Amino acid sequence: MKTKNSDNVQTLALFMPEIKESLASKKFIQLRDILSKIPPIDLAEGWDDFIPQEKILIFKLLSVEFVTEFFESLKSEEQEFLFNNLDDSNVAQILNEMAPDERADLFKDLPEDVYQKFLSLMKQKEAADVRKLLTYEEGTAGAVMTTDFVELVKEMKAKSAILKLHESLSFDHDLDIASIYVTDETHKLLGVVELQALIKAPPDMPIEDIMESADHIKVNEFMPEEKVAHVFKHYDLNIAPVVSEDDKLIGVITVDDIVDVIEKEATEDFEKIAAVLPVDKPYMEANFFNLVWKRSFWLIVLVVVESMSAFVLKFNNQTIHNMLALTFFVPILIAMGGNAGTQSATIIIRSLALGDVGVRDFFRVVFRESLLGVCMGITVAVVGSIIVTLMESNWLLSLVVGISMGINIILAATLGAGLPIIFRRLKLDPALMSGPLIATIVDVFGLIIYFKVASLILPAL
Amino acid sequence: MKTKNSDNVQTLALFMPEIKESLASKKFIQLRDILSKIPPIDLAEGWDDFIPQEKILIFKLLSVEFVTEFFESLKSEEQEFLFNNLDDSNVAQILNEMAPDERADLFKDLPEDVYQKFLSLMKQKEAADVRKLLTYEEGTAGAVMTTDFVELVKEMKAKSAILKLHESLSFDHDLDIASIYVTDETHKLLGVVELQALIKAPPDMPIEDIMESADHIKVNEFMPEEKVAHVFKHYDLNIAPVVSEDDKLIGVITVDDIVDVIEKEATEDFEKIAAVLPVDKPYMEANFFNLVWKRSFWLIVLVVVESMSAFVLKFNNQTIHNMLALTFFVPILIAMGGNAGTQSATIIIRSLALGDVGVRDFFRVVFRESLLGVCMGITVAVVGSIIVTLMESNWLLSLVVGISMGINIILAATLGAGLPIIFRRLKLDPALMSGPLIATIVDVFGLIIYFKVASLILPAL
Repeated sequence: MKTKNSDNVQTLALFMPEIKESLASKKFIQLRDILSKIPPIDLAEGWDDFIPQEKILIFKLLSVEFVTEFFESLKSEEQEFLFNNLDDSNVAQILNEMAPDERADLFKDLPEDVYQKFLSLMKQKEAADVRKLLTYEEGTAGAVMTTDFVELVKEMKAKSAILKLHESLSFDHDLDIASIYVTDETHKLLGVVELQALIKAPPDMPIEDIMESADHIKVNEFMPEEKVAHVFKHYDLNIAPVVSEDDKLIGVITVDDIVDVIEKEATEDFEKIAAVLPVDKPYMEANFFNLVWKRSFWLIVLVVVESMSAFVLKFNNQTIHNMLALTFFVPILIAMGGNAGTQSATIIIRSLALGDVGVRDFFRVVFRESLLGVCMGITVAVVGSIIVTLMESNWLLSLVVGISMGINIILAATLGAGLPIIFRRLKLDPALMSGPLIATIVDVFGLIIYFKVASLILPAL
Repeated sequence: MKTKNSDNVQTLALFMPEIKESLASKKFIQLRDILSKIPPIDLAEGWDDFIPQEKILIFKLLSVEFVTEFFESLKSEEQEFLFNNLDDSNVAQILNEMAPDERADLFKDLPEDVYQKFLSLMKQKEAADVRKLLTYEEGTAGAVMTTDFVELVKEMKAKSAILKLHESLSFDHDLDIASIYVTDETHKLLGVVELQALIKAPPDMPIEDIMESADHIKVNEFMPEEKVAHVFKHYDLNIAPVVSEDDKLIGVITVDDIVDVIEKEATEDFEKIAAVLPVDKPYMEANFFNLVWKRSFWLIVLVVVESMSAFVLKFNNQTIHNMLALTFFVPILIAMGGNAGTQSATIIIRSLALGDVGVRDFFRVVFRESLLGVCMGITVAVVGSIIVTLMESNWLLSLVVGISMGINIILAATLGAGLPIIFRRLKLDPALMSGPLIATIVDVFGLIIYFKVASLILPAL
């Protein structure tokens, strides 16, 4: 996934008039020249500005180095459109040259017949690679990795290692060789050589003297992608080796894919804490009825849980009848409980996601939030009481609202912190304890507390 | 900032018994050996498990290659502790060798006298570098960049370029040379050479034939860090050059720092949408009263705004008196408006941050959210009406609650989408339009609508 056109990245726009002019006047050599100056991702992004014939023409004019990267950056509809308008040998060439992970993504969306046809066009090794990558479940290291990498044996000398890199690069100029992996004859991972260590080393130094341990940075093929992201962040990695269960090197993961994982995970947490089932597409591309469902689901759960608040009020029917003014402060009371709960739940859920807080911190966090709740509760209760006094000139009522609001905020902060950690402990997703859900739970308890406090303090009830 | 010990990264724990044993039996050569197997960041993370004497001893035993990286990974209190227990020559050595960006971070927190003392210990060039980096405002490219990089001139041949890299690496083995920059005699940035293109090139090829344009990837020293992150994500960069206003190369930014920026920006958005002023430290390290203030601030704003709901209820005093059952459904009504608003605001704020939605999409987004609101409103209203009918057996009242709830959800979805985009348009932070704030606004309008609908439908009023 590439980021969308943000306001600061507009290389294509600069060249657009020239491109359109060359197209109109059929100056194709000039056009090829212009195209070579535009980063492939920017061209892909402005692709919608061209009509179908222009697209085919431009695509055929792209330089060999650019064409694969450009193709990889296109949306899948556009990839299919081009494939339908190119002859089989062009399609085969692109398929064979695509980065294995991008190619697997393309195959994921293909209808069965096209899938089979494309596989038949590809070299045997590449086709097997696609099949293998597609077996990994979405969200695992295997599904994120790419299978383009260079392996060295530990007896090799630095000079021959560099020659091997030359050779590998001449086959695949997009190969990432910043880190190169050392394996034994069964492809078992032995260690990693940094390219800069290699070029610095004396020509006849054996690789095993340059290599470092890869034990702490290697990831298992089935490791969940968010754990892989943790390893990357922890060790500041640009690239990590992926190994099979029996410790054989089967792929590498690069940091650009990890950046996407980090953003995706954060977006999912944003959705969950707002009580939305995770949507896997950008907002404007998401299906409308899918969005309706993903949001209505939680709204319906919440309306059912929240209905308990109506029972609490009905149960206190007589109290309300005796003092109607009590109802005036019901919204403010439950809103503040909800707000404090949202604050607390969101902060703790994010801290859990970042690893700043863990299950082992349960008691410390809950204690801290309760204390925070006391401080915030008192502050807000004072403000709330003043508002009540200004409206009703009944200091006992002010006291009732203030005390209830304070207790409510303490309760909200405590539950908002505790429930997500308990969820994590139960191996459930802490972000399911969304702000709205915490708020709803607090609403019901908050009203019970309110009427209890009122009955204790107000003589009229 | 490094991530905390997550459950999968526990290299130090494995070695801990051995380390403690070597310390106890004073086997320092064995200890030095064990230490060389532990990644510096893992050692830094478990640092609290050692007593002060052990810390000093272990630090002195660390290998030359590790010591700087280890030191950089420590918390600032621990850095200061070590500096207080090392002699000046050791301090000077570490200060001179630290990565410029990490070093500037250290200096930021120092008291004036220590700051001056440390500067005086450093080489003149390095000291000037610290002073320069500290002039950048937090959150700009200049404050994130490091000043360690290699410059080449365009007339240089590939072979001499590689020799120059050898030489630079022997001074600074942590130098990132995956991309090397080409400048003219005034240090103006001309282009970039990828290390793999360099090692692939024939030895006598001039650099200018290997170099590519850096125009689209270079960032200005004052560019806000979130824009820099956009450039990295857009072009899948591992490293980018930073240039001054007059296009001179002054530093580089590496992707590990950008990963931190992305996480920090997301965390700030989490805090803002939960109505918390941004806290710049991990949860457990944040100052307690600072947290109280950062959360109470918004709670007080919200309690004041929310107090309008009390006025609405008081104004409809007589209506409530005539039909007490109306109040039973006040919490459910306002909660559902709040929930729908939180969903909408959160999704749109996140989409704005990711660049999936922009100011130009205002009408499309608001229209889409209104339509979504209609669909969700009808669904939830039906469920809500059923609950009311079950409780009160008054189908007119069910109708009132259902209609109000539906209108409320539509209003909430529309405001939740529209207000953040309007904020962005006004160059304000969209995330200030937090879920709680939208909920509060919707509460007040929601109640007005409720009583209006009630007065139109219920004959008893």
